[in-house]
Amino acid sequence: MMVNEVQSNKGRMFKSDDSSSDGSQGSSRSSTPGPDADRLQEKMRRRIESGDKWFSLEFFPPRTAGGAVNLISRFDHMAVGGPLFIDVTWHPAGDPGSDKETSSMTIASTAVNYCGLETLLHITCCNQTKDQITQHLHKARHLRLKNLLALRGDPMGDEWKTEEDGFNYAGDLVKHIRSEFNDYFTICVAGYPTGHPECDCYEEDLRHLKAKGYHSLRQLVKLSKLQVPQEIKDIIDPIKDNDAAIRNYGIDLATDMCKVLLESGLVPGLHFYTLNREVATVEILKRLRLWTEDPRRALPWTISANPKRKVEDVRPIFWASRQKSYIYRTQDWDEFPNGRWGNSSSPAFGELNDYYLFYLNNNCSKEELLKMWGEELVDEKSIFDVFTAYITGQSNSNGKKVTCLPWNDEPLALETSLMKEELEKVNRMGILTINSQPNINARPSTDPIVGWGPEGGFVFQKAYLEFFTSAENIFTLLKVLKKYKTRVNYQIVNVKGENINNAFDMQPIAVTWGIFPGREIIQPTVVDPISFMYWKDEAFALWIEQWAKLYPTGSPSQQIIQDIHDHYYLVNLVDNDFPFENCLWQVIDDLFMLKASEKTCGSPVCELLAKP
Amino acid sequence: MMVNEVQSNKGRMFKSDDSSSDGSQGSSRSSTPGPDADRLQEKMRRRIESGDKWFSLEFFPPRTAGGAVNLISRFDHMAVGGPLFIDVTWHPAGDPGSDKETSSMTIASTAVNYCGLETLLHITCCNQTKDQITQHLHKARHLRLKNLLALRGDPMGDEWKTEEDGFNYAGDLVKHIRSEFNDYFTICVAGYPTGHPECDCYEEDLRHLKAKGYHSLRQLVKLSKLQVPQEIKDIIDPIKDNDAAIRNYGIDLATDMCKVLLESGLVPGLHFYTLNREVATVEILKRLRLWTEDPRRALPWTISANPKRKVEDVRPIFWASRQKSYIYRTQDWDEFPNGRWGNSSSPAFGELNDYYLFYLNNNCSKEELLKMWGEELVDEKSIFDVFTAYITGQSNSNGKKVTCLPWNDEPLALETSLMKEELEKVNRMGILTINSQPNINARPSTDPIVGWGPEGGFVFQKAYLEFFTSAENIFTLLKVLKKYKTRVNYQIVNVKGENINNAFDMQPIAVTWGIFPGREIIQPTVVDPISFMYWKDEAFALWIEQWAKLYPTGSPSQQIIQDIHDHYYLVNLVDNDFPFENCLWQVIDDLFMLKASEKTCGSPVCELLAKP
Repeated sequence: MMVNEVQSNKGRMFKSDDSSSDGSQGSSRSSTPGPDADRLQEKMRRRIESGDKWFSLEFFPPRTAGGAVNLISRFDHMAVGGPLFIDVTWHPAGDPGSDKETSSMTIASTAVNYCGLETLLHITCCNQTKDQITQHLHKARHLRLKNLLALRGDPMGDEWKTEEDGFNYAGDLVKHIRSEFNDYFTICVAGYPTGHPECDCYEEDLRHLKAKGYHSLRQLVKLSKLQVPQEIKDIIDPIKDNDAAIRNYGIDLATDMCKVLLESGLVPGLHFYTLNREVATVEILKRLRLWTEDPRRALPWTISANPKRKVEDVRPIFWASRQKSYIYRTQDWDEFPNGRWGNSSSPAFGELNDYYLFYLNNNCSKEELLKMWGEELVDEKSIFDVFTAYITGQSNSNGKKVTCLPWNDEPLALETSLMKEELEKVNRMGILTINSQPNINARPSTDPIVGWGPEGGFVFQKAYLEFFTSAENIFTLLKVLKKYKTRVNYQIVNVKGENINNAFDMQPIAVTWGIFPGREIIQPTVVDPISFMYWKDEAFALWIEQWAKLYPTGSPSQQIIQDIHDHYYLVNLVDNDFPFENCLWQVIDDLFMLKASEKTCGSPVCELLAKP
Repeated sequence: MMVNEVQSNKGRMFKSDDSSSDGSQGSSRSSTPGPDADRLQEKMRRRIESGDKWFSLEFFPPRTAGGAVNLISRFDHMAVGGPLFIDVTWHPAGDPGSDKETSSMTIASTAVNYCGLETLLHITCCNQTKDQITQHLHKARHLRLKNLLALRGDPMGDEWKTEEDGFNYAGDLVKHIRSEFNDYFTICVAGYPTGHPECDCYEEDLRHLKAKGYHSLRQLVKLSKLQVPQEIKDIIDPIKDNDAAIRNYGIDLATDMCKVLLESGLVPGLHFYTLNREVATVEILKRLRLWTEDPRRALPWTISANPKRKVEDVRPIFWASRQKSYIYRTQDWDEFPNGRWGNSSSPAFGELNDYYLFYLNNNCSKEELLKMWGEELVDEKSIFDVFTAYITGQSNSNGKKVTCLPWNDEPLALETSLMKEELEKVNRMGILTINSQPNINARPSTDPIVGWGPEGGFVFQKAYLEFFTSAENIFTLLKVLKKYKTRVNYQIVNVKGENINNAFDMQPIAVTWGIFPGREIIQPTVVDPISFMYWKDEAFALWIEQWAKLYPTGSPSQQIIQDIHDHYYLVNLVDNDFPFENCLWQVIDDLFMLKASEKTCGSPVCELLAKP
């Protein structure tokens, strides 16, 4: 039939090319999906119905803070492949419900809130009182962990001991969760095809093993009392001393087994015990074509899996290279996007002096950092060189590449590379850039470098440049900026908060946006003058916390950084004329031209230029 | 000093190039201004301080409904000149607090809510009880009339009679307003430089005069007992029979007097008793350079002066030619822009069957309409001809130009003229267009035809086409649209609400937006699939209410329109690829090509094309 009848309720309409009965009806208007559409079991149901196979990944909490940093970076790498969910095991010996960075609770929360992963947290009931468990559950709810795998867990010793004020079966735990928290949680339970459940934490024991190559396999087999088929033994025995060959054989074998399972039509998805490693699992998933890495991003930044943040659609550009820090500092905000920077002029950014914040953003050793950033600094110029080496990607005098800066965890982004030459030039002259983007005018949303969002759209950017520089440069810059009038928006601030800007009514400026078929405009990144004042605290603090502290107290190296911290300004510039050539490089050129002319002559022309 | 110190409260920041002490501080973030910044006396104070002269305009309530329509159109014309405010007199004999379209209350409310004018409503206390006055005040507050001129008013007969249960002085009225409504209202009072106040309504008497030319002047003089200087008498006596000469002399004289006043430095603004006329006042204001008509619009549509609607920043495109109807139907919404179409999928549009609604949108006589739209319709083709004549602007067979249609109050908009040829072509073939816009890619915001918003920005549009057409055409159109996939969004509906569309998740589509220096993106117009279902009720009803009803019941003319109403579809099309050539004309071409080929051949190629 050509048309679909509409009910008297005008909200009920049907899409012409969508034959399924769910989807566009009723709640289609609201940007938050219905209460159940987002639940894990619903996602599974839809994948099973559509025949679209999924994969999921299991991790265990690490033992050390360093291990936690590595694991979070693994989450980021594996998130791009599109797992339906990950799960994090409950490690009773590791204080699993605590705030430690290694606790099960913290790891699961990081996966949801910072890495955008749908996450299932294991929780066991043995050896715990009802009250302890209830406390854990309250905390999980507070952290927006919505999925639980309810398990009995392993006895502490060899024998099972009945818990007086607790639960003895996973079923009791489920009943307790339902009675205390109603339907808040999606609860999974373990069902084993044969016999009695094994403990959920056997991989916990495994991590004490060097789980690699042939020896790892032998240990695993020994531990699990599995029988390895003779044909496999025959193949691996001759290559047992060749780690690479063993690994490749394992990948081949696992891929073949998975193919058989998937082709049987009986298996809707595969769950991988990653043992917190990524190489083999990713390779197997790629061969199975289950790894759905999409070069296109939904937004320029990673959308959080925290249900509260899912409607968030705009962020200040300042934290572009420190997104985890932004999430951390805004975690208590109630609403996105309406409360995106608070409703008033005083957004309640979280406090800065937090170990966890810095810790999250630095996974190099002190030795490595000193090799990159200089074991001894001689003068400001030493600093300029570090920034320049980061931009060029070339080795420094230590023969070491500068792959990160306190403000940038990762090597230069692809789109920043588009401006490499200009960035190198200005950094050499003491314009110490920490954030930038080129202008973009109606490039397809599928563009491999600057594209994002759904197909068929167009993306745009205003050129942006953010840098530290000396008071002397600022003095000249302010004169230069007069010439650019409203074309260039600027904001300039020092560590004391002394601030000068030409922001219109202190309003945010859109600097990244996209126009897509059938949608309203999406404007995911802004330069927000008010948030900038919070960012500057963080940006200045990083000089000291991440760089100066590498050197002995009172050393000349430390003093050089302290001086920069105390006397430099942080500047951001926006070129509003995005369809034309980026004028921000011209602004910097003008600065040095004017500075040079002021030094060399006192003619009336120079005087004139010099007047504000 | 180069920088301004920032207080510990980060919200307090200062703009570098704004030396005034108000403005960007504190509340700068919120889009609603502070409670007092928006008040009339604050606006006056700022204009006095800055030396920026203003003008204001006084009107009286008309006697007839037709007069009300004319007055509203006068408000629209005079609003573009930028009056600081207008005032509306209180006409005790005209049921001034009622819902009649001629009441003082309704006229003032229309000026605020529909025409975007800051409005001051006169209110008198004589011959009314305290309760009656309180009722009026409640109503004024409900209609968001915030400014009152509190007056005693004229006695009913010749003599003043003390009111028992009322007020005898304007001062009493002011006290009453303050005690009952606190600070809600801004209250003005009359103060006369010499002697006892005259009645505020003397122009009320004047409107009984033929207030034009020399005789009008004589009557005015007689009535006001003013002495006309001999030098003026000497000039006008010889030209007393030349109306144009008298008017021009009056304009010259008034302009000179105003200049003297303004140049004295003692007069911050001028208030004009317009006598509900516009020509002379506008001319004087233009000569004084007080008429600040700005070809640029703040948004593509007129922003309401109702404080509740001032933050409204987006409207559906459908009502572009019937904005008063849109305001009327959404007047009960609580919030803009978050509640712009309601928060759910059921926006609470006001009911349609309202005399006032239609009345507001039609200020031609039945005779004129019949001459434009045909005294007798022969077939559908007669209808096509009316639409075509409206587009071309040429006279029809009656020698009459079609300057409006039921869906369009005004002649073709300038930007629509850009597509005149294509529109003419498709209307001739029965694609009866009622709304359209060309695509626009990054044109300067100062563009005289399509520009809007602050200087230095860029404006954009997606091509849009909305039309009625036959079921036969729809049948072919649907096949054609398959080829365009997501490039073209469409929505097709008949009077029964049978509806077909490819809207993504029923989300609105941005079709007009602008990018400006120092601002977030502004997106004032959308195609909203849900609102479209409310608009279609109105769009179909206009066939009957405004057109079919011109003909005798049961007449063939009426039946032709009824058939169109019953069987045609209303279609909207959006071309998402705004940087490229508008493809919507190609869609219509394809429609007629395919239709023609289906009629003339049954070859496999045609069969293939015909398959959905």
